[in-house]
Order: sequence, then structure tokens, then C-alpha cells
Amino acid sequence: MSKRALIILAEGAEEMEAVITIDTLRRGGIDVTVAGLAGKATVKCSRMVSIVPDTSLEEAHATSPYDAVILPGGLKGSELLGEAPLVGEILKQHENGGQIVAAICAAPIAFKSHGIALGKQITSYPSMKERLVDNYKYIDDERVVVDGNVTTSQGPGTAFEFALSLVKQLAGKEAAEPLVNQMLLKL
Amino acid sequence: MSKRALIILAEGAEEMEAVITIDTLRRGGIDVTVAGLAGKATVKCSRMVSIVPDTSLEEAHATSPYDAVILPGGLKGSELLGEAPLVGEILKQHENGGQIVAAICAAPIAFKSHGIALGKQITSYPSMKERLVDNYKYIDDERVVVDGNVTTSQGPGTAFEFALSLVKQLAGKEAAEPLVNQMLLKL
Ligand SMILES: [Cu+]
Repeated sequence: MSKRALIILAEGAEEMEAVITIDTLRRGGIDVTVAGLAGKATVKCSRMVSIVPDTSLEEAHATSPYDAVILPGGLKGSELLGEAPLVGEILKQHENGGQIVAAICAAPIAFKSHGIALGKQITSYPSMKERLVDNYKYIDDERVVVDGNVTTSQGPGTAFEFALSLVKQLAGKEAAEPLVNQMLLKL
Repeated sequence: MSKRALIILAEGAEEMEAVITIDTLRRGGIDVTVAGLAGKATVKCSRMVSIVPDTSLEEAHATSPYDAVILPGGLKGSELLGEAPLVGEILKQHENGGQIVAAICAAPIAFKSHGIALGKQITSYPSMKERLVDNYKYIDDERVVVDGNVTTSQGPGTAFEFALSLVKQLAGKEAAEPLVNQMLLKL
């Protein structure tokens, strides 16, 4: 059976980080659910791209746990994810259950807001470092950081590597490696 | 005044190529219009991401010419672009007017269908080469090819470079270069 990933989309999400992750995971055979934090309505992303989620976060959560819960960045989107109690509940369930929790760019600030992965090695968009450095072992110089079941990454330009790491963790090297050539990535 | 770019979105478009281009151009200060080939309805992309265009292609064309007309790839999306008379009309108007026409991945086959850029240097997704090699000077080993007002590129993994080339052509090096660090690109 395919592994299942939940991507939570909030207004102001970074659309490249969201779409690169969704698309690459689906190419890797992962069953991805794109869930709208504010329901099923169209989500206006950080650069005004409008994406329609597959379902609402409430409905998506009815089939938790997933094999991975993934937060795209974008400053406003990340702050909204950090303020939502349901996001905190879902992240805690998955962190405790040993499933993957993952965040890119500004989204690790939502981990901090919800007390997720405290003390672990993480990275983020560089300008978020000062908000994270007291609560985590902050790594500056790696584009993707995996510490146990916690995966973090830095920004739009690292989104392919973030997604490939998740495919590899969920479906193995044999699922991830062919995507490098298929998508013409220069890593 | 900002330069204006038109991106035409058809069902089956490659969502990463579309979104990376839209987002990067907007970060570069370009005024981007995302136009739906089939009207204003939500567009189901190649990996099932649903994007709502800003407007229909008919309405967008009312304010032609743009400074650039851009076709994202995705096989089905590219074939639909190749079959649409209005896309051919818009491409011819812009090719003849000296504005930029650009296509990535499978989308150069839509150039061929409409008789655009014939004889020029182009590239594409590698598997499309045989459909293009008789009508173009086909370049295998460059990730982005610029020949006069025609820009082409190869696939999802070259989409950032494609978008940066367009920002540079439209708004100059001083607009494009800061984006490399801002987006954390490794080129
Ligand atoms: Cu970001």
C-alpha cells in the first residue's frame, strides 16, 4: 500500500514549496492529501497563486495518522499554522506516533509554537534562525536536516531536495533516485 | 512601469513549472497574469494540483501585447496549447512584435504546432526531441536556450533557471541576481 502524506495549506503559504513537495511526492508514488487549514476554500498563497486544496484539514484528520505531516513555508502561512490548535494536535499525534513531521522555510516556527521537536537538530530559512536557535540544535549549513522523525529544510531553492528526502524516507531510494533524472535536477 | 508576462495554463500543465515561473517572476517585479486556456475555471494540473487562474485567456488577450508569453510544460497541457487557435494567434502576434515567447519541457511542441520560432535554436524535455529536431536547431546540453526573442528550457529541474532568465531579460540583472540568494538556489 502507498504511504500517505498530509500537506497543510494555509493562506500565505509559499506556493513553490507546497507544489514542488506535492508533485515530487506524487511522482514518487506517495498518496498525498492537500488539506486547507481554513477548510475547502481556495487558498491564496504568498505570491498570489490560488490553489484549491483536496479537502479540509478537519476531514483529512479523520483518517490520521498519515506516514508524514508536512508544512510548507511562507511567513504568513507559517504563522497561521503556528496559531491553529488543530495543527498542534495533529503534529503532536504524529511526532509521538513516530511518523514523519516535516517543515520547510519559515514553517519550523510553527513547530516551535506547538512545542514540536524541541531540542532536535533543525534548519529553516536563514532569517528565522533567531526565533529558533534557543529551542533547537540549529544547523546553518545543511539544505535538509533529518533528525529521527523530524525533517526540516531552508527555502524554495531547497524544496526539491526536501521532497526527495521525504520520498526516500517514505518509499525508499529506489523510488527517490529515478526522480532526479526524470525531473532533470542538478543537485 | 512593470513589465507584463502572460502565462497560459491548460489542463494537465506541469504545476511545478507553472508555479516556479509565476512566483519567481513576481518576486522579480514582473506583473504576471495567469490565464486559463479553458476560461476562468480551476485547472487540474498534471499531478492533480488544482490552480485557479487569474482570468480567462480571452480576457487576458484583450490587453495584449504582453512583454512575454510563457507556456509551462506537461504533456497533456502542451498538446492542448498546441491545438488552440487562440494560443497560436497570441504567439504569432508576440513573435512578430518582438516580445518574448517562452516554453519549457513539453511545451515547445505547441510552438511547432503553431509554426512559431521555426529554425531557431531551442531545447525541450529530452523525450520531446524527436518531435522537434526537424524543425529547429535542437540543443541537447543546455538547460535554458535563448535565441533572439525565443526562450526554451527542459523540465521541472530547470524551471528556476528558466524563470531567472526571463526575469533577467525583462527586468535586468539587478532584478534577477538577488533572487538567487533570496530563494537559496544552488545553480
Ligand atoms: Cu519561504
